[in-house]
Amino acid sequence: MTTKKLGRQTVAFASPPSIAGHANVVGKKEGEGPLADTFDHIEQDDTFGEKSWEKAESTMQKMALAAALDKAKQSASSMDYLFAGDLLNQCIGSSFAVRGQDIPFYGLYGACSTMAEGLSLASMMLDGGFGAWAAAVTSSHFCSAERQYRTPLEYGGQRTPTAQWTVTGSGCVILAQEGEGPYVTHVTTGKIVDKGIKDANNMGGAMAPAAYETIKAHLQDTKRKPSYYDLIITGDLGSLGKEIVGDLFHKDGMDLANLEDCGVLIFDPAQQDVHCGGSGCGCSAVVLTGYLLNGMQAGRWKNILFCGTGALLSPTSTQQGESIPCICHAAAISTQK
Amino acid sequence: MTTKKLGRQTVAFASPPSIAGHANVVGKKEGEGPLADTFDHIEQDDTFGEKSWEKAESTMQKMALAAALDKAKQSASSMDYLFAGDLLNQCIGSSFAVRGQDIPFYGLYGACSTMAEGLSLASMMLDGGFGAWAAAVTSSHFCSAERQYRTPLEYGGQRTPTAQWTVTGSGCVILAQEGEGPYVTHVTTGKIVDKGIKDANNMGGAMAPAAYETIKAHLQDTKRKPSYYDLIITGDLGSLGKEIVGDLFHKDGMDLANLEDCGVLIFDPAQQDVHCGGSGCGCSAVVLTGYLLNGMQAGRWKNILFCGTGALLSPTSTQQGESIPCICHAAAISTQK
Repeated sequence: MTTKKLGRQTVAFASPPSIAGHANVVGKKEGEGPLADTFDHIEQDDTFGEKSWEKAESTMQKMALAAALDKAKQSASSMDYLFAGDLLNQCIGSSFAVRGQDIPFYGLYGACSTMAEGLSLASMMLDGGFGAWAAAVTSSHFCSAERQYRTPLEYGGQRTPTAQWTVTGSGCVILAQEGEGPYVTHVTTGKIVDKGIKDANNMGGAMAPAAYETIKAHLQDTKRKPSYYDLIITGDLGSLGKEIVGDLFHKDGMDLANLEDCGVLIFDPAQQDVHCGGSGCGCSAVVLTGYLLNGMQAGRWKNILFCGTGALLSPTSTQQGESIPCICHAAAISTQK
Repeated sequence: MTTKKLGRQTVAFASPPSIAGHANVVGKKEGEGPLADTFDHIEQDDTFGEKSWEKAESTMQKMALAAALDKAKQSASSMDYLFAGDLLNQCIGSSFAVRGQDIPFYGLYGACSTMAEGLSLASMMLDGGFGAWAAAVTSSHFCSAERQYRTPLEYGGQRTPTAQWTVTGSGCVILAQEGEGPYVTHVTTGKIVDKGIKDANNMGGAMAPAAYETIKAHLQDTKRKPSYYDLIITGDLGSLGKEIVGDLFHKDGMDLANLEDCGVLIFDPAQQDVHCGGSGCGCSAVVLTGYLLNGMQAGRWKNILFCGTGALLSPTSTQQGESIPCICHAAAISTQK
């Protein structure tokens, strides 16, 4: 069997890459949430012993990469490719984490869709025959994101009801050309969708149409019904964005009973004051590398569609009155090839 | 023949993708330089009719993509993938250019190495069988870069002798699975190299060791001598960085008589006050899509090694006392498969 392009946006792999290792590192607040027991390392000090939030974020990525390599029983020098990116200006969270790693490196910018983007490209590298091992890592840090995108922490600004809370965390996946699974069987590459939302405090609403379009394209391209998947899980739409995706499919006559969102799952809305839920590159990365992949390995789910969502705005574009271009990349992950 | 991994960092394509179209757009200053007649469009108004420098940069990317598609006689909707990135925070030059394009999109951050990174990944997509057409586009704009990385234009800050001048320009390459060439035959993926240089006004010096390492890896992996190539051309090392690469090879007993640099070629040091030369994502992109590919098509060169160089720093990392992590990705381009 050779790799097939299905429709416009989806690829079905001839040799689905196997997830050989996955690990995550989170901050204190994430460690107090409902997914606490799915995290490999919960750090009580959000500085991670560093002198700046940006350096703390790089340290998280280094820790997640090292832990995932360890679980895969591989050294950095056996990796053929590393894909990484984050939310910081010029993606310094990643550049400084990758510095000193002996791994050929491609930098990404996909905002909060970065884990899905990295997983997609890493899978394509292996199925394409360009190497035997690849890694994808990403991160976000509440404190580095707040001061870059919003206001200094010390300012104590009021949050709007549609706001989300940037996850402090990093997740890493190690892929192998051969292995026991779970396998990445398909990827669906997103297009930019922008429905004109300009409120940078309503990312979930802005990103929901991109998630809808990519999930719809995936189902059409693969001729699968939503019920094929045990879970269709978006990255960080939060409670409002998740509801919008449900509504959009409902209008098409489809009810996605299996729709979940990493940003909804990661915090407890009753106990943790996060408004619409979690967000950030780290959000889907730590849920994938904990709750989701652990659950698949424990036999809880056989097939999931992991849909990373990203809002490709910047404070400058918002100040210039622009709306928010959004994207969603999906990867089908299965316990069977 | 199947695609081969050569050594640690290099891939030799079984089915080298063909460059079906290439185009560029530049600003006034670039249009007054020695490569003027290799540019498809020279705009006299650096605002490109837009209200902000960031929007001007997006407009350049849209123009370059449209022109390259036109030369390849393709529509946007026939592209399977588009890879794009730029220097702006959160890569908004690219996101807003790609918005409204009907193309599956992967965002990159490789600083000034972005054209080489996009060209590498687009080539891998096609050789890997994941599609028939792919595009890579990138840009930089002097005015958006100055105000983001340095000082407001109105401030009129003095430039140091090692400083370079960010090119206002965008270049786009359209790749096809089949075609008449030139062909991308090999890619060598870079690792991050950081020799401890902290002066953000000496990017050429900082990036030179990364260029040296990638060129050396490429030559070792392919068992080629430097003289195999008519040109080994780096992205934006400028005159100082180029000299350092020459010195590093000289120490190894190799003299690279065919070493050139896009940043050295694009401006006239006697007539245009640019200190060490041009820089920015647009620098190597517009030289590749004009001078280099035109020259190959005219029979001037048969084999070139295109080496995009990137400095993965940010103003924040510099303020925090960090040195500059650098990378270089190389693509071998040949008139023969």
